[in-house]
Amino acid sequence: MSQKHEIYPCEEGLSRYKLTVEFYGAHMVGWQRQTNGPSVQEKIEIAVEKFCQRACGVYGAGRTDAGVHATAMVCHVDLPGDMEAFRVMEALNYYLKKEPVSIIHCSRVGEDFHARFSATKRAYLYHIINRRAPLTLMQNRAWQIKYDLDAEAMHEAAQCLVGKHDFTTFRSVHCQSASALKTLDRLEVRREGENIFVETAARSFLHHQVRSMVGALSYVGRGKWTALDLKASLEACDRAALAHNAPPDGLYFTRVDYD
Amino acid sequence: MSQKHEIYPCEEGLSRYKLTVEFYGAHMVGWQRQTNGPSVQEKIEIAVEKFCQRACGVYGAGRTDAGVHATAMVCHVDLPGDMEAFRVMEALNYYLKKEPVSIIHCSRVGEDFHARFSATKRAYLYHIINRRAPLTLMQNRAWQIKYDLDAEAMHEAAQCLVGKHDFTTFRSVHCQSASALKTLDRLEVRREGENIFVETAARSFLHHQVRSMVGALSYVGRGKWTALDLKASLEACDRAALAHNAPPDGLYFTRVDYD
Repeated sequence: MSQKHEIYPCEEGLSRYKLTVEFYGAHMVGWQRQTNGPSVQEKIEIAVEKFCQRACGVYGAGRTDAGVHATAMVCHVDLPGDMEAFRVMEALNYYLKKEPVSIIHCSRVGEDFHARFSATKRAYLYHIINRRAPLTLMQNRAWQIKYDLDAEAMHEAAQCLVGKHDFTTFRSVHCQSASALKTLDRLEVRREGENIFVETAARSFLHHQVRSMVGALSYVGRGKWTALDLKASLEACDRAALAHNAPPDGLYFTRVDYD
Repeated sequence: MSQKHEIYPCEEGLSRYKLTVEFYGAHMVGWQRQTNGPSVQEKIEIAVEKFCQRACGVYGAGRTDAGVHATAMVCHVDLPGDMEAFRVMEALNYYLKKEPVSIIHCSRVGEDFHARFSATKRAYLYHIINRRAPLTLMQNRAWQIKYDLDAEAMHEAAQCLVGKHDFTTFRSVHCQSASALKTLDRLEVRREGENIFVETAARSFLHHQVRSMVGALSYVGRGKWTALDLKASLEACDRAALAHNAPPDGLYFTRVDYD
């Protein structure tokens, strides 16, 4: 799994910190700094600047779409001096206190650590609430699907996506990845009462891949597609063969692994 | 457990419905209609009036404080005609669609059913998140406690509150109950990672009783009180012997049982 990457050294006098970030993404444009609205990256960079009195770039393990949440996104930042990790976490949370962004863990790391390039696995959770009644407590935090879903059928069909495939069908037309060939390590669907959880993990994902896979699985769950239809859509290697994208509301970036 | 109550008959031409209600209470004054802000009862009564073109009183199984949530509050309402329960649920949810209130179940019941007087047991869940980092996804939905809590010590100490006691210590000075003598059926504390869940059930609770019990248990959890201190505060039968009230944010009304 491991793959050596180029080293991005710290500037003289700076120390590198790995931050684990939780965020509620409903009212943000996503992780990545953009001109059309507030992003998580920007909010952390502003907090860092207030704390350190200088601009320091924050580098994430991945991007997320507008409206997507995270229980444990990882990023790194190089800060002046040699501060205790706990102090950095407390200070950033102080400056983030009005934002839906929280640093849940912070540690000192070496120059060989890069949040994006050192990552060996990423994991997402997708939360569906399968009921007629509108959401209240989980509004913006799950995808409400009114028609009955067969979670077992979704899980069984999902297994054809596990492994190394060309995921062109499940890739946004705006995807910037060099190749659509990706290895999906895990795609599991389970029901707990009215909740259906889809968990997935891979070294990396294409743009919209998780939402596209969940959208297709919802077709299987309602009996509109068979497992064979799902397989055929994968094999078509054609975006036009996609069912539809699941909304961002139910998607959570949950984990990044490093060697 | 069962105790016959007076029958509150339906008016001629009306039929009674039992509604199970989920609500996000952060921006409401509580269940009960009040003059100082929006209540869940008022929102449902407005939806009923829009649907039926006439005012119909909605009666809840209990009151809740401002900021408290429910996954399954129960109420009843008498509506004109003889409509299918499913249609009533769909119609009320249509009129509630902009509100943080949702009817998750509806059934026809007889005149002997009264949401409050027929209830034989009520249950609450209190959610504590035990960590340094501020909340994002669970903001307004849990009580963040920064210092480490010993959930096992909380659970063990809690058992002295189970059974029939005078709960004056754990009762708001504004409580309207005739007697402070109540039987607590269950008070369980368990940890799941950074989450601590307190579950409690009784035929009925005094005003602020759950929040007062959880506040006292937080003292035990941080080692400020021993189990004996908790027992002494109960036996004092004196509001001044209370630790403090837990905030409403973490409290969920989760269940009402009927014979």
